[in-house]
Amino acid sequence: MSKDASPRSDKWVDIIEVGTRDGLQIEKKLIPAAEKIAILDAMIASGIRLIEVTSFVSPKAVPQLADAAEVLAGIARRDDTYLMALVPNVRGADRAAETSLDGGVLLCSASETHNRKNLNRSIGESIDGFAAIAERLREAGIDRLGAVATAFGCPFEGEIDQANMFRIVRAYAELGVKHLTLGDTTGMATPANVRATVRALKAEFPGLDLCLHLHNTRGVGLANVIVGLEEGVRRFDASVGGLGGCPFAAGATGNICTEDLVYLLQESGYETGIDLCKSIDVALRMERALEKPLVGQVMRAGPRLTLHAADAVPTAAG
Amino acid sequence: MSKDASPRSDKWVDIIEVGTRDGLQIEKKLIPAAEKIAILDAMIASGIRLIEVTSFVSPKAVPQLADAAEVLAGIARRDDTYLMALVPNVRGADRAAETSLDGGVLLCSASETHNRKNLNRSIGESIDGFAAIAERLREAGIDRLGAVATAFGCPFEGEIDQANMFRIVRAYAELGVKHLTLGDTTGMATPANVRATVRALKAEFPGLDLCLHLHNTRGVGLANVIVGLEEGVRRFDASVGGLGGCPFAAGATGNICTEDLVYLLQESGYETGIDLCKSIDVALRMERALEKPLVGQVMRAGPRLTLHAADAVPTAAG
Repeated sequence: MSKDASPRSDKWVDIIEVGTRDGLQIEKKLIPAAEKIAILDAMIASGIRLIEVTSFVSPKAVPQLADAAEVLAGIARRDDTYLMALVPNVRGADRAAETSLDGGVLLCSASETHNRKNLNRSIGESIDGFAAIAERLREAGIDRLGAVATAFGCPFEGEIDQANMFRIVRAYAELGVKHLTLGDTTGMATPANVRATVRALKAEFPGLDLCLHLHNTRGVGLANVIVGLEEGVRRFDASVGGLGGCPFAAGATGNICTEDLVYLLQESGYETGIDLCKSIDVALRMERALEKPLVGQVMRAGPRLTLHAADAVPTAAG
Repeated sequence: MSKDASPRSDKWVDIIEVGTRDGLQIEKKLIPAAEKIAILDAMIASGIRLIEVTSFVSPKAVPQLADAAEVLAGIARRDDTYLMALVPNVRGADRAAETSLDGGVLLCSASETHNRKNLNRSIGESIDGFAAIAERLREAGIDRLGAVATAFGCPFEGEIDQANMFRIVRAYAELGVKHLTLGDTTGMATPANVRATVRALKAEFPGLDLCLHLHNTRGVGLANVIVGLEEGVRRFDASVGGLGGCPFAAGATGNICTEDLVYLLQESGYETGIDLCKSIDVALRMERALEKPLVGQVMRAGPRLTLHAADAVPTAAG
């Protein structure tokens, strides 16, 4: 990331906000571009520096993100703001090239079935297509970032073949990609496979900055963050209010929640540059925009030392 | 615990189910004793061995638990079933003595304000009263277990004075208590204070079996479990379906969820003796009994390798 001005102390953790992309993409209620921009501006004001704003997918496939260029153009950047978007194909790269995007994320699933379903091509075809997308982004002065979807398991195939992941990552590395996101697309990451995967990738590709894109589908998202931190990962995707979901489980939650992650990191002695209270305000605003309750916990309970009057509420033992 | 037949491999973790106590105590909808018993029997059939079934609090204060004796009498025990209940005072011990309870849990908060509000006495008065409760339980052949509420912070006072916790634990130790539960009553435990507190207590009281009673009020319950495991804790309270709540935050969740904890442990190479699918069935049954959705995640998404047909649901990139 060229504008990535992260202080690189061992206690600094980058949070990449993906709520307006991974969160909104499954929401039926269309949020007007102006409201998205206001929310993104509020995220930046809360201290968020890195945002995966949108995706240059087909507007027909994901109408919610048809306003990608308009939203990117409307954001009031700060000097350290770094805006990213998914760029799944050359057509997307062409659209991205017309914007002020900082980083374009190339994508491929580690599962053949998921990649076919998501991008309508084989893993090999996706890999063969990377160069053209990357070249189009390079010409436009946009950084090339890489992501592997279903990195910890596939909802169709089950366990993934690690050889597939290595093929994809090697292709990214050959294109000079420095930032690699491992996507826990449907919440199949566990402490054991997060640890094993991070170790294997660090051993093989020591120059890559790893980012974990964890979902909380099975409730263990933040437990996986702890393991990632222990393995030296200092970059995590998260979604405002825990926005998002899992297409395979009605009622299951989506990405790990930004404010809950900020809270966890802050209480664990890490720095994020993000103001927790402002972050909660952003989540409450997103909730109002979507007119439905989000699943974030800290946005309900407040920061840890939120004190209550002793006569406020009756307690019961325990 | 006298009937505690846990295999003591380093990979064995005891889960104590507290849903019918800590979970139900804040539910307004009264569940009939017969339904509670059916759910408790299903828990036992799922492999749960240790259950904090109820509390011998004043039936006036907590009508939901007025049926404590009836429920305990109705449970179909297996040989390794161990039934526990909170016993906050001598009157409660008198009632418990008439039942087949295995373990009675004494309780005191590490916060003066919380203890006064919860038990209507000072920490000193609670400590002075332990002996009489313990003696009554001993006469009835019931094990004496100990718990410290607000062990990681108090919603009224903020940080607790660790000296208070040590006073309480010393009093338990002098009474021969072996099992000590640290209660994260309103979800103020963090990786940092879980690690520090467990280390401090283990250094001072190496003979105690520590149990963590974690709430997920701020979303970090299972992250705290990871830290507890790293510090050698092998006993955790959890609540079916994540049942429970926080009286200070509408919409905030309560105890960590049993099935999600079973999932996390199983996927991390630990053994619990609990069948995840049966455990999910219990959560679904509790949900039907309460006629409202519970917050458990694995009960929605299913076990990790729940596979889907590739034509089941449209996906979107990411």
